[in-house]
Amino acid sequence: MTYRVVVIPGDGIGPEVVAAALGVLRKAAAKGGVNIEYEHCLAGGAALDQCGEPLPAATVAAAKAADAVLLGAVGGPKWDGVAPHLRAEKAILGLRKALGLYANLRPVRVWDALAPHSPLKAEAVAGADILIVRELSGGIYYGARKEAHVADAPDEAWDTEIYTAPEIERIVRVACRAARLRRKRVTSVDKANVLATSRLWRTVAERTAAAFPDVRLDHLYVDNCAMQLVLAPKNFDVIVTGNLFGDILSDEAAVLAGSIGLLPSASLGDGPGLYEPIHGSAPDIAGQGVANPIGCILSAAMLLRHSLDAKAAADAIEQAVEAVLAEGYRTADLYRPGLTRLSTEEMARRIEEEI
Amino acid sequence: MTYRVVVIPGDGIGPEVVAAALGVLRKAAAKGGVNIEYEHCLAGGAALDQCGEPLPAATVAAAKAADAVLLGAVGGPKWDGVAPHLRAEKAILGLRKALGLYANLRPVRVWDALAPHSPLKAEAVAGADILIVRELSGGIYYGARKEAHVADAPDEAWDTEIYTAPEIERIVRVACRAARLRRKRVTSVDKANVLATSRLWRTVAERTAAAFPDVRLDHLYVDNCAMQLVLAPKNFDVIVTGNLFGDILSDEAAVLAGSIGLLPSASLGDGPGLYEPIHGSAPDIAGQGVANPIGCILSAAMLLRHSLDAKAAADAIEQAVEAVLAEGYRTADLYRPGLTRLSTEEMARRIEEEI
Ligand SMILES: CC(C)[C@H](C(=O)O)[C@@H](O)C(=O)O
Ligand SMILES: CC(C)[C@H](C(=O)O)[C@@H](O)C(=O)O
Repeated sequence: MTYRVVVIPGDGIGPEVVAAALGVLRKAAAKGGVNIEYEHCLAGGAALDQCGEPLPAATVAAAKAADAVLLGAVGGPKWDGVAPHLRAEKAILGLRKALGLYANLRPVRVWDALAPHSPLKAEAVAGADILIVRELSGGIYYGARKEAHVADAPDEAWDTEIYTAPEIERIVRVACRAARLRRKRVTSVDKANVLATSRLWRTVAERTAAAFPDVRLDHLYVDNCAMQLVLAPKNFDVIVTGNLFGDILSDEAAVLAGSIGLLPSASLGDGPGLYEPIHGSAPDIAGQGVANPIGCILSAAMLLRHSLDAKAAADAIEQAVEAVLAEGYRTADLYRPGLTRLSTEEMARRIEEEI
Repeated sequence: MTYRVVVIPGDGIGPEVVAAALGVLRKAAAKGGVNIEYEHCLAGGAALDQCGEPLPAATVAAAKAADAVLLGAVGGPKWDGVAPHLRAEKAILGLRKALGLYANLRPVRVWDALAPHSPLKAEAVAGADILIVRELSGGIYYGARKEAHVADAPDEAWDTEIYTAPEIERIVRVACRAARLRRKRVTSVDKANVLATSRLWRTVAERTAAAFPDVRLDHLYVDNCAMQLVLAPKNFDVIVTGNLFGDILSDEAAVLAGSIGLLPSASLGDGPGLYEPIHGSAPDIAGQGVANPIGCILSAAMLLRHSLDAKAAADAIEQAVEAVLAEGYRTADLYRPGLTRLSTEEMARRIEEEI
């Protein structure tokens, strides 16, 4: 059997980190006996330049027909001035929608070797290991909205946060299943003291988690969670929350790890999954060979695990990354005197060798 | 002229910290020649127990007729099981609405002496001085909503985030005026790449800030702001944002300071202002004399400054707090060997002596 993976390098440092990750993915797949066929597609600024739109129909069609999509990063100041419907964000939101991606998994692991790079004191953060499960296809991102442009009336705009019970159920189930493979705790985050959607969220979360008696569920208000992530990140195992709160909290949690260059993500639905590092396209450092490819490499590991059912190959990549970091190899963003500095490509090759 | 201040001790440690703050307020007012008459009122659990509702009409009437309200904290597990309309939050939201409080000011200052208590590395956080200006009477807190209970249909709930241009204008103006007295920078936070309300917010913020040519305005997406607060808190001066984002970001920023026991808040409208420490009622430590009264004491300073036009008296309190901390006096939450440990009351008296 041959799997099909669509590769979207994108903009800025996207092509560099994707090239690096593909090398590692090829190596791990070969070693694990996983056959993959790759198809390169356009999205974001690159697509806008070449096709006049940020998400060409050909990319969507290829992604839908594939087993998984590996994406670098899209967007950049070059395209910041374009009309709203042509913006790079539309490629991301469009792909999520086209592929029915409703579960965004954002693991944040503070590797011991990197705790000194965290903005938090090492004793508070070392060993933290959080998985944020963000609902990705509902909430205020996709509710009805009204832009402000009514003549002769004060400008007014609105957005609708909306959730149905089945949407909440399926994402809480994803979180509970993930927790079973970890420390068996799920923290559901909402603002149930104010929002109707949050009250529904809390009720459905309780009901859904009841089917997982081995998993302990608790609840936090989003404002309190924003505090606790900084105060006591080690207390969290799995966090499950809606689209907007997940956007904010997953980025807040990300910076605890010392470098967002290290962090992967997976967006899952019932079809192909989308895998991408959480960092942006960082056009200011593009083409210099200094970008950290580890976020993209760990995204490739998630791809193997979640879409290609290749747990051993995924583990091999993750262990190799951990070993290489422990041995003191670093890209520019994490380099300190006494360690060994590698370029984007060299880092990928070190990880390949380690596999 | 005699000012009228309504005092709402509330629940848990509320009465202790309010008593401590009143001592300091009396001292500073006397020294500054400010005449104040105090009226004690009920709200929260205490009101529920004595009057059957969390926000009695008498409290609302007294607050409306006063120049300012000083509040301790409301709520606690004792009342967690009550019906939604009886919850302590209703007292807070009800007071905000009754007094037309649209601007919540949340200063976060990382005093040098306390930087070791921050979860962040001292070099990253020492000297940070942020003022978060949160819109408090609009947005998704007050938009239409629908609870989930429709028979024979999948449960669905929704909330409406809604803003008008005049609401945005007046809060951005508050932020710009505050920035003029500080480092003259305002960061407006939104999610304009997704939300219609955020796009209106951004447009109106630009237009409003144009009238303050000496103030520099920039914009951040809320997810990025959640990152930057942890990565580079010293880069912020004034942050202005909507009700929900402000709730999350102000709590996130609060933990940077090392103890939320230190932080005050002011909620302002066109009438009397409401002043309260940002900490909760902490029933687990109530009545033990260990609560930190400084958040409430600094709230009293804000009350003097913003509602009683008594800048000198406000400055006197703030300088006294700074001096007492620098001299090594601490309540239990911030005590470390080598420093001098004080009870709630003793801390208040030390600050009074310093004034
Ligand atoms: C680009 C933007 C629409 C997107 C989001 O908010 O979902 C991004 O912040 C993310 O988290 O992937
Ligand atoms: C109690 C709650 C409704 C309130 C809010 O969200 O506004 C609180 O979190 C706050 O920030 O004062």
